[in-house]
Amino acid sequence: PAARVSKFEKDVWSIFTPLAAETKAINLGQGYMNFGPPEAVQKAAKEAIEIVESNQYSHPKGRLRLRNAIAASYSPEFNRTLDPETEILVTAGANEAMYATFAGYLDEGSEVICIEPFFDQYISNITMNGGKPVFVPLRAPERAKDTIISSHEWRLDIDELRSKVTDKTKMIVINTPHNPVGKVFDEEELLAIGKVAEENDLIILSDEVYDRLYYPPLNKFPRIATLGNLWERTLTVCSGGKSFAATGWRVGWLIGPEHLVKYSFAAQTRVVFSVNSPCQEAVAAGLEASLTQPIFQDQIAAYLKKREILAKVFDELELPYTVPEGAYYILVNTVKIDVPQDYSFPEELDSRGGDFKTCYWLTKEIGVAAIPPSEFYSKEHWGLAKDFARFAFCKTDDVLEQAVERLRKLK
Amino acid sequence: PAARVSKFEKDVWSIFTPLAAETKAINLGQGYMNFGPPEAVQKAAKEAIEIVESNQYSHPKGRLRLRNAIAASYSPEFNRTLDPETEILVTAGANEAMYATFAGYLDEGSEVICIEPFFDQYISNITMNGGKPVFVPLRAPERAKDTIISSHEWRLDIDELRSKVTDKTKMIVINTPHNPVGKVFDEEELLAIGKVAEENDLIILSDEVYDRLYYPPLNKFPRIATLGNLWERTLTVCSGGKSFAATGWRVGWLIGPEHLVKYSFAAQTRVVFSVNSPCQEAVAAGLEASLTQPIFQDQIAAYLKKREILAKVFDELELPYTVPEGAYYILVNTVKIDVPQDYSFPEELDSRGGDFKTCYWLTKEIGVAAIPPSEFYSKEHWGLAKDFARFAFCKTDDVLEQAVERLRKLK
Ligand SMILES: CSCCC(=O)C(=O)O
Ligand SMILES: CSCCC(=O)C(=O)O
Repeated sequence: PAARVSKFEKDVWSIFTPLAAETKAINLGQGYMNFGPPEAVQKAAKEAIEIVESNQYSHPKGRLRLRNAIAASYSPEFNRTLDPETEILVTAGANEAMYATFAGYLDEGSEVICIEPFFDQYISNITMNGGKPVFVPLRAPERAKDTIISSHEWRLDIDELRSKVTDKTKMIVINTPHNPVGKVFDEEELLAIGKVAEENDLIILSDEVYDRLYYPPLNKFPRIATLGNLWERTLTVCSGGKSFAATGWRVGWLIGPEHLVKYSFAAQTRVVFSVNSPCQEAVAAGLEASLTQPIFQDQIAAYLKKREILAKVFDELELPYTVPEGAYYILVNTVKIDVPQDYSFPEELDSRGGDFKTCYWLTKEIGVAAIPPSEFYSKEHWGLAKDFARFAFCKTDDVLEQAVERLRKLK
Repeated sequence: PAARVSKFEKDVWSIFTPLAAETKAINLGQGYMNFGPPEAVQKAAKEAIEIVESNQYSHPKGRLRLRNAIAASYSPEFNRTLDPETEILVTAGANEAMYATFAGYLDEGSEVICIEPFFDQYISNITMNGGKPVFVPLRAPERAKDTIISSHEWRLDIDELRSKVTDKTKMIVINTPHNPVGKVFDEEELLAIGKVAEENDLIILSDEVYDRLYYPPLNKFPRIATLGNLWERTLTVCSGGKSFAATGWRVGWLIGPEHLVKYSFAAQTRVVFSVNSPCQEAVAAGLEASLTQPIFQDQIAAYLKKREILAKVFDELELPYTVPEGAYYILVNTVKIDVPQDYSFPEELDSRGGDFKTCYWLTKEIGVAAIPPSEFYSKEHWGLAKDFARFAFCKTDDVLEQAVERLRKLK
């Protein structure tokens, strides 16, 4: 086997999702919905299945209807008229958009700066393409150990970021709304990151898959590609699965200037050739509907309620946690959760840093799966991940209430 | 951009598919159907869209229902009981199965032997993963210039194949039924290739995406993985899109021993994470149906008729061609097609070897698109590709009849 691939370990999803299923735990580990896409979107998918042409290969850049719908939906968000021919690329999920971009831009030894915690797939995607991830952490304030904080209090030290740039650095990856912290970077923070990118002529790869999920008092989602002249060096990644509660459709997209999208495209059409056609039609229908109907606004209201249902139990339990400004995860400090000292759990997990033991115990004994975010940190910074569990709230209210009921056993 | 990716040229599909559309030519270039999946398969897709769970992430190895259906359908074909847990991997189309296997097995400088002509994507997929393709051609007999031959007469010189092995060789890629030749390798040929693999401890990657399409007098499709001890070193790639007339679904799969599937899986779950869920359900339903209904037998009969409709016009025109034993392409010798000497066509295409000029002229002036198979040859062997056009017959009979009518203008 290839040296790069053979050293990959089982990922955290392949540990906790089966464990949750076996133990009949409520799975607040992996972030996927237990509800389906909006009616109109489902209807469009079923209609597409009936049309011959929408079951055959799509244009490798994505179906024109979908690229047009993305342009219509995102042009106001980007303060520019997006060109569906050259500035939009449909990908096999957001993951593959990231992969194709690394493939399109990295050479052997290229460095990519990743902000910790990071979505775990970034790292394998970078190393598989010959790149080297370089890490700079978001840090929570001291008091986060004792009290509830806002995700905004997790801060990036810009000088620390700048110090990581070398002559091999090609790219900075950012993620906003941030998984697992929930942070929505504000314009000032984004401009500061952008300045580092400009000073060093770096590409910014902005993973914005949760862009439709940010919570009041935020009433606008700041996008780095819209600030200053950063458009020219930024590729923005979005997710149909996350926007329309269909994580299994594998429809994502990239937005950026032609000169950057071009090489992500050159790579992606070789990796997957094209993207699932009927689900592209359905996502197009969803984006078209969102132009006249408050789909995303309603979704924000629904998720806000979910956040409150879940957060309430951590309040009751007096467990410190981070209130997310966006996305659908709550990061909880686990120090006060009493896992029996002698609780035995698979040894191979013990060596993986973070709070595997607590998450394993929560899944098996309390019946609620959460994941340890150590997979979202480099080994050198596992210390930062030590005392956390991440709970997803992209579930129906009743299932969240059941999870809350089970978590009350922790009292 | 990455050195490897930035040197890719526009692929042949991105030239001829838009050209066919613009000029309203009948597109017998790219191989996709102008008809849809069987009723039962469509129905299963629509049902899956209505079920919450089948719109969310699938197991990264593929949905269990689909892996079970693959095991049930292919176990008799492979003369062994396939284990859905370890010996089957669902991929984002067959293309991505190949990509993930190259990613899982190649290191910088690894060599992969490809038989020419080859499906064009192999080469980019190999080089993107640091590998180096090494070429050995199938050769048509001399008389193919003047007369109709069977695809079986295209032969691989086994000593030539053996001479290409070096200490860097990792893999031999074979393709049967072969695109674009239509050859179905027989057991003797497969065993000879297998012997070279065994002598040198090479992996065999067998692209069998047209495995459900082979024509009488063949009544069994020979699979290299079933011969001698070759199972242990063979990964077989199959295609839901090709088997069920749904090329836009991007559902393929790999079959092989656990110790090989393992690393394709390790790569693929990083590249795409998982595969479109509702279409996996639909393909599962199709394979399940094929256990009790003669779906594939009927499909063979239908394609045989299509082959005859299209072949007839080349007979009439007295153009030499290859009768395919499998897949849905006819390779036609273009020497006798009279393209006006002074016919002007885009210069950048002229430098791409093969018969771009005739294919361009056929598309624009005759109204039938075909592709020049030079993209299926390494530059060093463009000479072998010089006088061919490939016509696809995966179209409804009436559209094929229309194409025939237009091609009669060549008389
Ligand atoms: C590859 S896991 C997908 C879900 C997700 O994004 C998450 O749970 O973080
Ligand atoms: C990537 S093109 C897909 C169709 C095909 O396999 C072919 O036409 O050869």
